[in-house]
Amino acid sequence: MPRLCKPAVSAPEYVITMEETLAFAERVHGGKPQLPLALRLIRNTGVRKRHIVQPIEKTLQHPGLTERNRIYEVESKKRTPQVIEEALRNADMAARDIDAIIYVSCTGFLMPSLTAWLINKLGFRSDTRQIPIAQLGCAAGGAAINRAHDFCVAHPGSNVLIVSCELCSLCYQPDADDIGSLLSDGLFGDAVAAAVVRGTGGVGIELERNASYLIPNTEDWISYDVRDTGFHFQLDRRVPGTMEPLAPVLREFAKDHSWDAGSLDFYIVHAGGPRILDDLAKFLNVDRKVFRHSWATLTEYGNIASAVVLDAARRLFEEDTPQPDATGLIAGFGPGITAEMALGRWAVDTPAELGNAA
Amino acid sequence: MPRLCKPAVSAPEYVITMEETLAFAERVHGGKPQLPLALRLIRNTGVRKRHIVQPIEKTLQHPGLTERNRIYEVESKKRTPQVIEEALRNADMAARDIDAIIYVSCTGFLMPSLTAWLINKLGFRSDTRQIPIAQLGCAAGGAAINRAHDFCVAHPGSNVLIVSCELCSLCYQPDADDIGSLLSDGLFGDAVAAAVVRGTGGVGIELERNASYLIPNTEDWISYDVRDTGFHFQLDRRVPGTMEPLAPVLREFAKDHSWDAGSLDFYIVHAGGPRILDDLAKFLNVDRKVFRHSWATLTEYGNIASAVVLDAARRLFEEDTPQPDATGLIAGFGPGITAEMALGRWAVDTPAELGNAA
Repeated sequence: MPRLCKPAVSAPEYVITMEETLAFAERVHGGKPQLPLALRLIRNTGVRKRHIVQPIEKTLQHPGLTERNRIYEVESKKRTPQVIEEALRNADMAARDIDAIIYVSCTGFLMPSLTAWLINKLGFRSDTRQIPIAQLGCAAGGAAINRAHDFCVAHPGSNVLIVSCELCSLCYQPDADDIGSLLSDGLFGDAVAAAVVRGTGGVGIELERNASYLIPNTEDWISYDVRDTGFHFQLDRRVPGTMEPLAPVLREFAKDHSWDAGSLDFYIVHAGGPRILDDLAKFLNVDRKVFRHSWATLTEYGNIASAVVLDAARRLFEEDTPQPDATGLIAGFGPGITAEMALGRWAVDTPAELGNAA
Repeated sequence: MPRLCKPAVSAPEYVITMEETLAFAERVHGGKPQLPLALRLIRNTGVRKRHIVQPIEKTLQHPGLTERNRIYEVESKKRTPQVIEEALRNADMAARDIDAIIYVSCTGFLMPSLTAWLINKLGFRSDTRQIPIAQLGCAAGGAAINRAHDFCVAHPGSNVLIVSCELCSLCYQPDADDIGSLLSDGLFGDAVAAAVVRGTGGVGIELERNASYLIPNTEDWISYDVRDTGFHFQLDRRVPGTMEPLAPVLREFAKDHSWDAGSLDFYIVHAGGPRILDDLAKFLNVDRKVFRHSWATLTEYGNIASAVVLDAARRLFEEDTPQPDATGLIAGFGPGITAEMALGRWAVDTPAELGNAA
């Protein structure tokens, strides 16, 4: 069965702390009625620092969509190759071993997708399938893992590379002062992540089952208003409460696999914000520490959209050593409101497979 | 094996003939040096008429990206439901039988993808997977069929709905006078298409193999420049010549399946333009009439991007009655330069399957 190998993650070099975010908010919203709300929202994110691709002064300017998207192209080409090469090394794979690239990013738009450039520049085969997904937002990390799982099942022996490039700071809208924008100004960070799903062998999370769920009639709760100035993030006040309807869905999903969602060995979930993680712990009746990798991502990088689940998974690989057959849940949440869920088991190369590889 | 059932296609109610396109070009480019080239390019498309979602006078204005994308949302919501319902009827399926929706469109951008709205409005199950693909352009029709094929193999017994919504007229850029824009002004049309890929049973093209190919180092030959004014289509002069390198790839692909690409029973290929179809006939050494369904799409609707292969397939279903086991090729071409290829065989319900369905 397909295995999610250790992800590689790169957080850009420009760092902005919560204190700096608060200071910028005081400057931007100073004297306006929304200031106290903005400061409260920023403090409540629990995000201690974020990494962004440009210096903060440049980030706060809006040079127009034409220039913004040009920066997206330059930065994505600058930052994805090294992360991809690390992900390939983590999986003990070469570029020519990859049969499909799933590229997820909701913070810039290129056509053709960056996949074409990556195939040309990094030595992937010309028959590599390209699966670019731009419109699942933060849920796309989970979706990428699930579609990689499907691809490996459909094409036995194949391997899939997942690339997540989320340059959220390029969607900052200086003139927006609605609650969704005020919150996102303090919440989102930039990151590039990649991981290989191997069709056979490798060390990682063996993917056993996947599913998706759309909370009915919530399609306008998280959305982009696409304008002359680019993507404007819109967030409904009800979004932080969505774990109450989603927790039973996760429970049912695990139950269908004869597992108990409340007593798995590891959890890799999207860190949309602190309320998401707190509520999920409450409604799944688990200790909030089971989400420690997601908390760490949120605290150190902010909400890095589809890259969260890959970064949380990286932390699992680095900080824990799950026992063979340890059971786990992966879940991405995003616009729709959509949950992309997976169940897997920690797995290491079997001697037979090692023998085949030798 | 999964079967592509009969597609449903809707061409919008506003019609523009080649004569009208020529007259508009005379007006827009009158007295400018590019006029003779524009007229020649339009005549050479072979597109007799196109269908568009707004009256031509409105289409020729650019109301800004904010308004354009709003129109895309309104028109896609207005036009997709009836096409989807017809595609479901064609496949003898109900909305609740669908396990995944693959939505392809490169002419507008919604987040969440229209899939969320469709699930809520048309009675699809909440656990329907959403696979929105925006960045494969005209190749996305082939890619959608191939990913639907993969999904059905990965999840036995499942069914996938493909929706292609290409409102190319909403990408018209009045100020652009480069050769790619001049050509596209006379070439592209609007259409909405849908089709079901059934996991088992049904009448249609049983999908046996799929593959993708990227012509090396051509990623800037077809591209969007994403600007404050939206998507600007950019086309390299070398694109019409791409069938020369792609024909051997199609040959090899068929040969890997023990088929001869030059002697199949039917061909469903992307009608990028007349040179594409003429060259493909030449380099595959087939009569140009084998592409009659693609020629008909091009002549009557123009290049309708990812919807071309679905419309050409619809014409195959309506105009021919392939013999059981007739062999065929499906191929989409688009930015990358990417080819998405499939091989399939005409299949009808077997008695055993009919018995199961009863």
